[in-house]
Amino acid sequence: MPNLPESIPARLAAQLSFLLELDRLKAVLRQSRLLPADRRENSAEHSWHLAMLALVLAEYSDQPVDVARAIQLVLVHDVVEIDAGDTFAYDLAGHEDKADREQQAAARIFGLLPDDQAAQLWALWQEFEDAQSAEARFAHAVDRMMPLLHNYVAAGPVWRQHGITEGQVRAKNAVIAHSSAALWQSAQAIIAESVARGFLAPGGVANGS
Amino acid sequence: MPNLPESIPARLAAQLSFLLELDRLKAVLRQSRLLPADRRENSAEHSWHLAMLALVLAEYSDQPVDVARAIQLVLVHDVVEIDAGDTFAYDLAGHEDKADREQQAAARIFGLLPDDQAAQLWALWQEFEDAQSAEARFAHAVDRMMPLLHNYVAAGPVWRQHGITEGQVRAKNAVIAHSSAALWQSAQAIIAESVARGFLAPGGVANGS
Repeated sequence: MPNLPESIPARLAAQLSFLLELDRLKAVLRQSRLLPADRRENSAEHSWHLAMLALVLAEYSDQPVDVARAIQLVLVHDVVEIDAGDTFAYDLAGHEDKADREQQAAARIFGLLPDDQAAQLWALWQEFEDAQSAEARFAHAVDRMMPLLHNYVAAGPVWRQHGITEGQVRAKNAVIAHSSAALWQSAQAIIAESVARGFLAPGGVANGS
Repeated sequence: MPNLPESIPARLAAQLSFLLELDRLKAVLRQSRLLPADRRENSAEHSWHLAMLALVLAEYSDQPVDVARAIQLVLVHDVVEIDAGDTFAYDLAGHEDKADREQQAAARIFGLLPDDQAAQLWALWQEFEDAQSAEARFAHAVDRMMPLLHNYVAAGPVWRQHGITEGQVRAKNAVIAHSSAALWQSAQAIIAESVARGFLAPGGVANGS
């Protein structure tokens, strides 16, 4: 890959290097399959989709949210996957060292930026990880809603492929309730309908069966 | 595709239908090729990338910009391509009826939303199209910067494939100057270096040769 022209000022060159590095998020594949393209989703297009969910669904947050900040949280939330890869929601082993792998990735990738912006984007990513602010909890809610919708409209391919049960899906998506009673109510309706239509196996962990 | 459960309130169901429709933007392919994936870029991941450019490069706008609004403009700017397709920047014939095709697409796709949000997102898209506000001009600047960077770091594959010349690239990217003297200066350095390295044929339309 050719170096950027030397006449570009150092600060802008660092910013452009970071932005070019982001191309690699388009090669990080998630478990979700896309109906219109018949392939696995990548984390870059997933991040765009979540930003659109944040823009359109903000009214359902139980606490008021700064939509612009929620959008920024979802835009950066998966950038660390360039180094750390996507960890499937139901991969227990993968989650054991996920935090360490992602902290190292954040240091390297955000570190490509000038210091002030490295700190700014790292703080956005950390806010998402901490899941404490209203915006971060809402960002987590939309990050769970979209895979649920994907699985429902595609008749449950990822659930079936990995032998995921209703109880696991309810447990994993319960974080939606930390942000929005309305979205959680609809998520539960989608889970129940998925079981009724045979997309998702009933019972399993966390629902007592 | 299964209908959403009937217990979901009509407003939320309309919003979720719109958000599911957006999946189709992930199947709209652009001319840009991705180095890390060896495939053409799609408009959804491109939109995410531009949002990151808006977040990181806003300081270079000659006029102050509301970064949050600039991000919203780039998030929605390509949604109409779900129906209208991507029109290659140098496709003169495709640009003749582009506006009509895209207005029809905007009516159908944003029309999936509740009326208030249909109006909100259509207004964002129209603001980008009109390219008058500081945010819209900045959004157009980043929309030109990224393909230029892609072509440069990949040694000019799209330029060569379509027989694009230096003069055409300068003319097409001159909109960057409407937002940012600093970004335009760097864009010109990248164009000159592309010619010097043989990625881009010298001369051609709009530079007098």
